[in-house]
Amino acid sequence: MIPTITAFERSPDHGRGLARDMRVRWALEEVCQPYEVRLVSFSAMKEPAHRALHPFGQIPTYEEGDLALFESGAIVLHIAERHAGLLPDDANARARAITWMFAAVNTVEPPILELVTAKFLEGDRPWSKERLPLIADRIRDRLKQLSARLGDTDWLDGAFSAGDLMMVGVLLRLKASGMLDEYPNLSAYVSRGEARPAFKRAFADQLAVFTGEPQTG
Amino acid sequence: MIPTITAFERSPDHGRGLARDMRVRWALEEVCQPYEVRLVSFSAMKEPAHRALHPFGQIPTYEEGDLALFESGAIVLHIAERHAGLLPDDANARARAITWMFAAVNTVEPPILELVTAKFLEGDRPWSKERLPLIADRIRDRLKQLSARLGDTDWLDGAFSAGDLMMVGVLLRLKASGMLDEYPNLSAYVSRGEARPAFKRAFADQLAVFTGEPQTG
Repeated sequence: MIPTITAFERSPDHGRGLARDMRVRWALEEVCQPYEVRLVSFSAMKEPAHRALHPFGQIPTYEEGDLALFESGAIVLHIAERHAGLLPDDANARARAITWMFAAVNTVEPPILELVTAKFLEGDRPWSKERLPLIADRIRDRLKQLSARLGDTDWLDGAFSAGDLMMVGVLLRLKASGMLDEYPNLSAYVSRGEARPAFKRAFADQLAVFTGEPQTG
Repeated sequence: MIPTITAFERSPDHGRGLARDMRVRWALEEVCQPYEVRLVSFSAMKEPAHRALHPFGQIPTYEEGDLALFESGAIVLHIAERHAGLLPDDANARARAITWMFAAVNTVEPPILELVTAKFLEGDRPWSKERLPLIADRIRDRLKQLSARLGDTDWLDGAFSAGDLMMVGVLLRLKASGMLDEYPNLSAYVSRGEARPAFKRAFADQLAVFTGEPQTG
């Protein structure tokens, strides 16, 4: 059974791989699982048919037979639990990899989301210029802590896992800001993620949606 | 093996059950698993010993033999996977329950965290008064969507699950704001969570830390 995921018909990031379908595409590529993509317009995302799949009217969703899921973290975990390659066999190491998935979305991503909100929803407000550095400093607090933990290792806990996939996916949102460059080991960590063949295939496929080129996946 | 979790020595919420150890306590009570609590001061949370357990210097952590975890979502999932009572047996229903866990921490909680940040870290800034209603509206967007999905059912997807536990845990942060009262089914949903015997035991135990009364757990 080939799963179907949803992605933006016109991604607001212009194919830079920052939309959350990228995380799911990458996970599916890591485990060599073919998939189909249904593109959704912004207006269709607010319609009842899509809301039935995703109560918050977002992408990605994941459909596989009778199963319908949303939330990139949950979908990546679902994929990782059913296919080898994204979670260690050892039970304790597996629990730690899942811990990093939650750390990515619940500890590292919230201040980054705040920066996105500040720029796109409050960018024209009078406080914007004075407030952005405050948010950046809160992001730096997290990056500093993450950098200290990563140290000079390749991945957060042993071999590459779904925890690294989610963390790199979250950190990619900071790439254009230049903030990652302040933490060379984090910058190298993200680059290692981007260098993975599965990442490259997923990236090319999400970019092809934007450019109109045929997809490889 | 009795696990040990960490909690604030002096919780900033004065025992209102908003700190994230509450979610872990509640999960442990739901599955009738005894546990021990090690209280951590704000200064100790920044020390290397605690950073070794929690790279971001927060609570809760979870230690069980050789295993050390952090992130309330990951700890609750670990507990739910190893004990009956928090995840359905059916594989698809289980994946959907985990989806709600991620929705709680990655879709519903971020705008609520933004409100917390706006009040406690930017409350004295000149833009605070004008900005708070914008954040409240972004929270309402999420609550409206969640309310529409919940409808007149008791829980988000069939029986009470770890997904409801995390969602109620996140929504509790809004209780004092009065915003939940704008969505009667969400307010009733949170009340159903609070009425569970396991919630009450967990709440009493975290409150006892603050009041200095002996704990029951």
